[in-house]
Amino acid sequence: MAESFRLSATEAQAKINGGSLTVEDYAKSLLSRIEQRDSAVHAWAYLDHDLVLQRARELDNIPREQRGPLHGIPIGIKDVILTKDMPTQYNSPLYENQAPKIDAGCVATLRHSGALIFGKTTTTEFAATTVGPPYNGIKTANPHDPTRTPGGSSSGSGAAVGDLQIPISLGTQTGGSTIRPGSFNGIYALKPTWNSISREGLKIYSLIFDTLGLYARSVDDLKLLLDVFKVVDDEPGEEFKVKGAKFALLKLPTPEWPELGSGTKDALKKGAELLRAHGAEVEEIELPEEFKTMPKCHTRVQAGDGRVSFLSDYLRAKDQLDPLLIQHVENTNKFTRKEQLQAFDALAAMRPKIDALADQYAAIIVPSVLDEAPVGQQSTGDAAYCAPWTAMHVPVVNIPGFKGGNGLPIGLSLLSGRYRDQHLLRVCGEVGKIFEAEGGWTR
Amino acid sequence: MAESFRLSATEAQAKINGGSLTVEDYAKSLLSRIEQRDSAVHAWAYLDHDLVLQRARELDNIPREQRGPLHGIPIGIKDVILTKDMPTQYNSPLYENQAPKIDAGCVATLRHSGALIFGKTTTTEFAATTVGPPYNGIKTANPHDPTRTPGGSSSGSGAAVGDLQIPISLGTQTGGSTIRPGSFNGIYALKPTWNSISREGLKIYSLIFDTLGLYARSVDDLKLLLDVFKVVDDEPGEEFKVKGAKFALLKLPTPEWPELGSGTKDALKKGAELLRAHGAEVEEIELPEEFKTMPKCHTRVQAGDGRVSFLSDYLRAKDQLDPLLIQHVENTNKFTRKEQLQAFDALAAMRPKIDALADQYAAIIVPSVLDEAPVGQQSTGDAAYCAPWTAMHVPVVNIPGFKGGNGLPIGLSLLSGRYRDQHLLRVCGEVGKIFEAEGGWTR
Repeated sequence: MAESFRLSATEAQAKINGGSLTVEDYAKSLLSRIEQRDSAVHAWAYLDHDLVLQRARELDNIPREQRGPLHGIPIGIKDVILTKDMPTQYNSPLYENQAPKIDAGCVATLRHSGALIFGKTTTTEFAATTVGPPYNGIKTANPHDPTRTPGGSSSGSGAAVGDLQIPISLGTQTGGSTIRPGSFNGIYALKPTWNSISREGLKIYSLIFDTLGLYARSVDDLKLLLDVFKVVDDEPGEEFKVKGAKFALLKLPTPEWPELGSGTKDALKKGAELLRAHGAEVEEIELPEEFKTMPKCHTRVQAGDGRVSFLSDYLRAKDQLDPLLIQHVENTNKFTRKEQLQAFDALAAMRPKIDALADQYAAIIVPSVLDEAPVGQQSTGDAAYCAPWTAMHVPVVNIPGFKGGNGLPIGLSLLSGRYRDQHLLRVCGEVGKIFEAEGGWTR
Repeated sequence: MAESFRLSATEAQAKINGGSLTVEDYAKSLLSRIEQRDSAVHAWAYLDHDLVLQRARELDNIPREQRGPLHGIPIGIKDVILTKDMPTQYNSPLYENQAPKIDAGCVATLRHSGALIFGKTTTTEFAATTVGPPYNGIKTANPHDPTRTPGGSSSGSGAAVGDLQIPISLGTQTGGSTIRPGSFNGIYALKPTWNSISREGLKIYSLIFDTLGLYARSVDDLKLLLDVFKVVDDEPGEEFKVKGAKFALLKLPTPEWPELGSGTKDALKKGAELLRAHGAEVEEIELPEEFKTMPKCHTRVQAGDGRVSFLSDYLRAKDQLDPLLIQHVENTNKFTRKEQLQAFDALAAMRPKIDALADQYAAIIVPSVLDEAPVGQQSTGDAAYCAPWTAMHVPVVNIPGFKGGNGLPIGLSLLSGRYRDQHLLRVCGEVGKIFEAEGGWTR
């Protein structure tokens, strides 16, 4: 029991179903891990030990035949997602101690499926800034090196899963808020196809980009979640083998994208070598010219959407908002609506083309981040390599396994066409085994 | 005071600012109108007289120099929009008496601007069905003929404004849920550009279609709201004159669209004649071939989105959901994800083309509805003529003024390109004067 915090959700569930672990004991193990570790990591915005244990006991009392597919699985919820029994505070003084009695759609689905909604994890302000949380206390730190950022905006969700404090957590992504912490914390992160999981009850930044994100330490755990959320592909599932598969390694050009650090450059090289060594073909491809405006288009649409999304908070208390959000509402960059629409429409036109490109390969490999997690917890890092795929609506998985110059984790992203999430997970299941075993980084 | 319920919001505000009307007296007049009329109309899902009067007195006590732009303006809120001091029940037994303590973004903005958040208006279930509300009581009726439907899904919002029970109300539109009740109840209805007003805290049906809608009995009132929500065009406002302006009258082809009834046919004819008589050019145009799939694409995307949006409610209590919502979640129509994406992308490609078409005219005139409000309150009518423009994201205004074969109101829709909402309101201000004066229907 004592060490059950180390288990993946799937492993823990097997023990719970087999009768060798109770939900309460599992929860106690996690709570004790948190107690031991969270003074260094600070991943939680709200955690009520008594509530957790009460819910755990309730779950243990459910007769076996009435148990849901996530029975007893503890899940951390990013604090921009509504939970009916816990506050949702968005890391904003405007929402301190606010506790609306309503579950987000995704939380309701998880709860109905038997999950143990554990607590709220830290987030940058409204999941919209790159200022490490919280604004009013000791900042969330990278579990693998507390002098560094865990990334953001899903800072606490990434750090808690990376630190074995919770097996699964929810994040969100508008730019790179799920994938970046995935890489920095050495865990699996899935940004599913846009709107394939309900976003009801998630704070809005950009309607057309915001996507619920999922964290775990195994692909099996992510698969468990996708199934509960009924994210299904058109094509039936077929076994995937790396041997004989064809991958693309996509080069993203400067100056549209920032120069990669040596950590990610080495990871890309090594990742390709490993796949080739295991019998796959890895084709290096350049991003076609017509897609080069992706980052610029993402920025413009996000700014135009932020202008709308933060208006009510701005009216209420401008002085308590991050300058970036004020800039959005006041449209400091003087983006016109015409520019915003051009960007919106240009991204829309790119989506089916990226699908078609992705369909030629088992998956496309792209960087997750520039490099290892930077030193300091004030800035959560750069989303440049994630934002385009958020805009494309395609599913993306960060696979951990590599390490940077300072021994910290680095992941690579694999992506597929839209609504091929299950296919992508099957690919990542096999690729992940290789990267984790031979990439050079271990937890 | 006694008759102040007849005032538009702008007229009432002038009296309040001038000191000849208090917010409390205005509220009392509306409450007494409601008391007198609502046993016939049943527009309210929740209304707390004491709360209304308490808030009204609080507003009266605000010093003049601290008053907001909507000071004292009573607004009815469709019961799919969260309000922190009232229940939000979605006309679903699943949410009976549910009262999350949180305001939707739009409600927070209205409240901050001094509006009197009055009560919750009836809606079809989750604003997603065409079954007249409520499910568990006497159904909302058309104020101009209680044997008929007020339309839906914004049934109560449309009926209450049409019946002089409230000057302004909020609706939503995914297909035709704002414009259709606008026409049936003989009022102005504005579906602004998609995502130009925050949709935070509105029940989700389709992310890419759902739009907050606004009801009033004057264009000035709609303008007041657009300004509070900071919906601005790129181009500065210029005075609009009907004389010399050029309109398009858009013919929508069968069988893609259902045959129009004589009420709307006559209104289109008369509307064009009136505009011409006032010196405008009205060009009859056909919908280009490439847009004919709009209705089909709308249906497919909506079904795919409904599959996601209602999953958590379905898991919780399938037996308490409308069959349409069950069909969505179970994907009874067997739409593939590929079909959904093709429709999603096709609509995206049409948007800039519709903008370009609209930019050639002061506005494009289209039907709002098939005909007068149908008899019966069980079905809220057909959204066929509204849904395409929801999918196009363009602003649309229903202008009342015409009447059908049974003397009931019929409106016409005017639309512009995206983010030309203020332009469209200026046009509708002038066109509305003509239609209201000479169209043949008066309240």
